[in-house]
Amino acid sequence: MAPHPYDTISFLSDYGRVDEFVGVVHSVIRSIAPHVAVIDVTHDIAAHDVRAGGLALARSAQYLAPGVVLAVVDPGVGTDRRAIAVEVGDGASVLVGPDNGLLASAVAMVGGATRVVELTSPAHRLLAPGPTFDGRDVFAPAAAHLCAGVPLGELGPDIASSGLRPGMVPLPQLEDDGLGAEVLWVDRYGNAQLNVGPDDLAPLGSAAGDPVSVRTETGTRTAHLVRAYAELGPGQLGLVVDSYGLLALVMDQRAAAEELRIGASHAVTLSNVDDDGNVANLAASSPVTLRKKV
Amino acid sequence: MAPHPYDTISFLSDYGRVDEFVGVVHSVIRSIAPHVAVIDVTHDIAAHDVRAGGLALARSAQYLAPGVVLAVVDPGVGTDRRAIAVEVGDGASVLVGPDNGLLASAVAMVGGATRVVELTSPAHRLLAPGPTFDGRDVFAPAAAHLCAGVPLGELGPDIASSGLRPGMVPLPQLEDDGLGAEVLWVDRYGNAQLNVGPDDLAPLGSAAGDPVSVRTETGTRTAHLVRAYAELGPGQLGLVVDSYGLLALVMDQRAAAEELRIGASHAVTLSNVDDDGNVANLAASSPVTLRKKV
Amino acid sequence: MAPHPYDTISFLSDYGRVDEFVGVVHSVIRSIAPHVAVIDVTHDIAAHDVRAGGLALARSAQYLAPGVVLAVVDPGVGTDRRAIAVEVGDGASVLVGPDNGLLASAVAMVGGATRVVELTSPAHRLLAPGPTFDGRDVFAPAAAHLCAGVPLGELGPDIASSGLRPGMVPLPQLEDDGLGAEVLWVDRYGNAQLNVGPDDLAPLGSAAGDPVSVRTETGTRTAHLVRAYAELGPGQLGLVVDSYGLLALVMDQRAAAEELRIGASHAVTLSNVDDDGNVANLAASSPVTLRKKV
Repeated sequence: MAPHPYDTISFLSDYGRVDEFVGVVHSVIRSIAPHVAVIDVTHDIAAHDVRAGGLALARSAQYLAPGVVLAVVDPGVGTDRRAIAVEVGDGASVLVGPDNGLLASAVAMVGGATRVVELTSPAHRLLAPGPTFDGRDVFAPAAAHLCAGVPLGELGPDIASSGLRPGMVPLPQLEDDGLGAEVLWVDRYGNAQLNVGPDDLAPLGSAAGDPVSVRTETGTRTAHLVRAYAELGPGQLGLVVDSYGLLALVMDQRAAAEELRIGASHAVTLSNVDDDGNVANLAASSPVTLRKKV
Repeated sequence: MAPHPYDTISFLSDYGRVDEFVGVVHSVIRSIAPHVAVIDVTHDIAAHDVRAGGLALARSAQYLAPGVVLAVVDPGVGTDRRAIAVEVGDGASVLVGPDNGLLASAVAMVGGATRVVELTSPAHRLLAPGPTFDGRDVFAPAAAHLCAGVPLGELGPDIASSGLRPGMVPLPQLEDDGLGAEVLWVDRYGNAQLNVGPDDLAPLGSAAGDPVSVRTETGTRTAHLVRAYAELGPGQLGLVVDSYGLLALVMDQRAAAEELRIGASHAVTLSNVDDDGNVANLAASSPVTLRKKV
Repeated sequence: MAPHPYDTISFLSDYGRVDEFVGVVHSVIRSIAPHVAVIDVTHDIAAHDVRAGGLALARSAQYLAPGVVLAVVDPGVGTDRRAIAVEVGDGASVLVGPDNGLLASAVAMVGGATRVVELTSPAHRLLAPGPTFDGRDVFAPAAAHLCAGVPLGELGPDIASSGLRPGMVPLPQLEDDGLGAEVLWVDRYGNAQLNVGPDDLAPLGSAAGDPVSVRTETGTRTAHLVRAYAELGPGQLGLVVDSYGLLALVMDQRAAAEELRIGASHAVTLSNVDDDGNVANLAASSPVTLRKKV
């Protein structure tokens, strides 16, 4: 075993940046493993939003440098939910966090778990007056010790990966009136990523570039398939294949999600707009996944 | 003296992240001492809020990696308030910032000052067109030069630690109707940390786990002592020993501070709830401090 | 050529910190050039605001450590706007970003371009499912490859610097009723930086320290020239030479921009207040620039 098997920790949480939580976790890591570079993926996951954290981690997973991933969105802190370390790629990387579904989609994106241990070793935690900050006291020390050369098996006993809490990734549903989709994520620009890939539009039976009907709770709009935001006219709604290979509802230099009044988890139904301008059915195909980078 | 006595700067400020202030300070440090890792503790202390900055620094202090602490919340910039460097632990670490009370609590947390100098050396500052950004022009260069091996005494003359501006840490007060406490801090999750430790509840004369009456400006509520947020039912108010060893008013996946309409510096009175449900007096003991990690 | 010609990337964008964009860009850089330190200048430029991004970059430019500057505010992503790398100081630094004016003022601040290439090399990009995240797929790989030792000329063909999109820096205008100025930037504290330097007030014909009349859309106020915020009384309006050498409208521990209801790009007219308290003309001199550090 190399003395320093990992030199990068990619860190995601719902800690925000207003309090000192993120800085303290960095400090704990630096005290245990000074050679490590810590990359902040984001810390502005909405408080307690395990689903949003899991999706952000899954989007990032294939771009992260090999090493340790430290992910903490942990409303069950202090209860008997398990703390885990999930090895992937036979040790290429290890994901550390609570066993509440947060890590599941990212683990699946990079090929699945090759080993899982429960983080129980008292020697690899900080003792703390209260049990509410496991990011500082349990997860960061585990991540740092792994980087400092502590073997995974010393952090606790092996457990079965089949027993882990699954992630919650919704699949689009073929319905009578179109493809029942869901908003996965609204980004800073107001682009609304759907759980729908471009191939799911293939069975539409119409030429590429045809408009698509978009129904939300507040009404029905027509969206045009474009490659770049700037191809859209003022006020025009677009669908782009976004940087993760999924379809996103967008506008040019405006927030489509605000315009449509949609947010994460909201329902969106996509259907065909036929030659007469009527909405026709859209036959959906296989469930969608985030695309691997090519 | 080693050529590089320190290799970590822990940096806290009220600069926010919207402007380029934090990035420019990082750049100034990198230009003077390229080997240094800068850890951002937080930069979202409310503008000019010296008390909040001092408390965040005190909470973080015991977790920071040895090295230099750079702290800037500085409403008096440009006036004759002094710029100082405070050595602690006989040189284990040095805290750099304005002499306005910001550093005081953190210095006390780690054992007190062993030496203080006033930062007056023109050779260790950046000359600037205007005197409003001492973080960039005075404090960051001092911190970086210390890391690059400049002896503390070259930054300016020694001054007496007894002359430094003290911090402002409120102590709980025993009153006729209970323990008069104060909110120190509301964190991102809406947990409201009080200036009260768990031992202060011991003289209550009731069994551990008994409910506690919590009176604020907007009314009186009953809080249950719990170990984990998730032990609380929906809408139930709790008191936990938080990750710094102080009592915090909490709810499960909800913001207790919002529910109680309390914020930093607000008054909260804690008292006993006796067997008949009546509020009885609570005898308070010694003043509270942040707990050291064990 | 040294194997590692650059070891610092200074990174500015409008990506915000809520999504994982910034973290993913850091990861891409780390995967290509692990030795590099990435300094986040800021990522909270208002979405699509090329002018604000360009001004922040120009303010920072002279303080950045030598190396690569990665700047992405890119509303035209996916269109035929060019991706460029601009060498300055005969290779002292290279600025990487879109050719939309974002880099122009910073390039001018540090002495102008000595070479420009268009980033077209497919071998130095990430292939991506959609063309909406060039920060990740085009600009970050180019910046990282430059740090890893790839010569500038391998990233694409040379182009003429004369063909680059210019920046948009407004100049103050001498008008009948005073000096027509503009707010360049409102910082976190509510200080409003103007496109006016202290020398522009010299032709005022009055002694230093005389008050200045400040007219905005919502009224006329008198401002006092001070060196420090704390010299101002409660509610008093001041003008300071700010940390970049420009005049800023300020108050003591209050947000002047909020008080005056002004924001970036708003018009402000400065004029003399004569001995009788009447507003007199102010003869303006040369156009203003950000001052170089001395």
